[in-house]
Amino acid sequence: MASGQAFSRTSVRRVNGGPVDEQFDDLLAVEEPLEIRLGFRKDGQLTHRAISITMRTPGDDADLAAGFLFTEGILRLPDEIIQIRHCGLKIGTGKGAIEQASALNTNTIRVDLRDDVAVDLKRLERHFYTSSSCGVCGKGSIEALHTGARRLPHDGFRVGGDVIHSLPAMLRTSQNIFDQTGGLHASALFDRDGDIDLIKEDVGRHNALDKVIGEKFLDGETPLSERILMVSGRASFELVQKALMAGIPILAAVGAPSSLAVELAREFGMTLIGFVRDGRFNMYCGAERVELKRRNSPEISEK
Amino acid sequence: MASGQAFSRTSVRRVNGGPVDEQFDDLLAVEEPLEIRLGFRKDGQLTHRAISITMRTPGDDADLAAGFLFTEGILRLPDEIIQIRHCGLKIGTGKGAIEQASALNTNTIRVDLRDDVAVDLKRLERHFYTSSSCGVCGKGSIEALHTGARRLPHDGFRVGGDVIHSLPAMLRTSQNIFDQTGGLHASALFDRDGDIDLIKEDVGRHNALDKVIGEKFLDGETPLSERILMVSGRASFELVQKALMAGIPILAAVGAPSSLAVELAREFGMTLIGFVRDGRFNMYCGAERVELKRRNSPEISEK
Repeated sequence: MASGQAFSRTSVRRVNGGPVDEQFDDLLAVEEPLEIRLGFRKDGQLTHRAISITMRTPGDDADLAAGFLFTEGILRLPDEIIQIRHCGLKIGTGKGAIEQASALNTNTIRVDLRDDVAVDLKRLERHFYTSSSCGVCGKGSIEALHTGARRLPHDGFRVGGDVIHSLPAMLRTSQNIFDQTGGLHASALFDRDGDIDLIKEDVGRHNALDKVIGEKFLDGETPLSERILMVSGRASFELVQKALMAGIPILAAVGAPSSLAVELAREFGMTLIGFVRDGRFNMYCGAERVELKRRNSPEISEK
Repeated sequence: MASGQAFSRTSVRRVNGGPVDEQFDDLLAVEEPLEIRLGFRKDGQLTHRAISITMRTPGDDADLAAGFLFTEGILRLPDEIIQIRHCGLKIGTGKGAIEQASALNTNTIRVDLRDDVAVDLKRLERHFYTSSSCGVCGKGSIEALHTGARRLPHDGFRVGGDVIHSLPAMLRTSQNIFDQTGGLHASALFDRDGDIDLIKEDVGRHNALDKVIGEKFLDGETPLSERILMVSGRASFELVQKALMAGIPILAAVGAPSSLAVELAREFGMTLIGFVRDGRFNMYCGAERVELKRRNSPEISEK
């Protein structure tokens, strides 16, 4: 992340419980709009279209755009992308172009697709509505919100309960900007031993996750079938949905899950864990992926 | 709020730091999609159109829809609305209809406007993009994101620093569902003495605020020029924007503000306060509306 863009400095008056107030310089998490545009062939014609505007913290914009398009079900493979570039700035093709573009500070990014990639315009419209639940309720609406995720396999990826307990501290110490601004959500991937693989921060929790998944998608590392995802806030439907699209089997959150997050995780065989803090956690579904050491047999290992 | 819809019960396995895990019943904050549809005249023809789908906690749907349309700049006055009803269910007109509709559990709500109300279709489209920052950066993008808010007057509304300090505890004790689920954001209005006027909760922070503003809008009480708004989380651009549309002079947040939230608050003359907790707070702008008692003259009052 280009740190110069991720936070800004401002003058603040701090009041400490009474008659005193002191002037000091504080850091703020930067929030700016990013418009994501898609370039593709429609009836043989090259066309481009605004897909979304999100309020995000600048940095890793290419990852964010790719992660968004992948988790929305618009992209399937990284080689469907010809180039990702900020508005009006053409900087070559391939992975190099993506990395250069990430360092620029503009608020429009364009993802150009290969000529032979078919774009489902209905799916594009889905985003404008977030979903299309018109006239349906409950179960029906959940189905309408699906982005095409598949049920997660139960292929033996399991982690120890002690690993889950260790995640919040690892997340916290790995956050670069949070400690300085107090204003950013974090999303991080951990391996089965609890070692951190990748962390991203953003004012929007969904953006932080899109950045994580987008980088892995662009590197050809999805599905992330041997990773634990840890998020700094609550677990919403949207976060579970994005994690499912990336094939992540375990989602752990510092905060509470929503009803729909639990429902979706159960339906797709994900392990959903909430309130991971203060030496405890709650498992809402998929508890079979978490191995707790039994009282009289602390040495039980995975089998 | 119809409490039966706002949370649901689920079976959870709780792990308390080691080999033990216990099964228990926990409460989850309900998250469901709400599609907001607008019924209006276009070229003399009655038409209706989906404006937005938001993931919200059911309850106060009519307030949410009205608040959303008002803070987006689509509605100006409550009497522009003929009726608000859940999809397929017509329950009369006027305020009575609104209240009945709020108690129903469906995920589509329609707001029908008077025939003579002109709807700016461009403004409707704005929402699908959240904004239209295409090709503009920084200052330009902020202007493009404006919903038509006006600069707040400095007409003498001031509060004591002790009132600001008292808000988090008042917010917390006034939350109904939060204590049970840990999963909801709260938005509340307070008067100058720190007495609570109205509180709403939702899985989405912007929804909680739309519900607060929507109820006041439908009751004809906007602009809220003598109210303090307190939010349970961080202060984003979007929350400042909505508060500005409702004419709220002071916004206080438990968490941090973003850079764009501070920028917008400064531009429109709002008092923005962050990190209101643990007996302290930070004032980012508009400090003249907060009266701090001086060391040697604790009795100084408003003038």
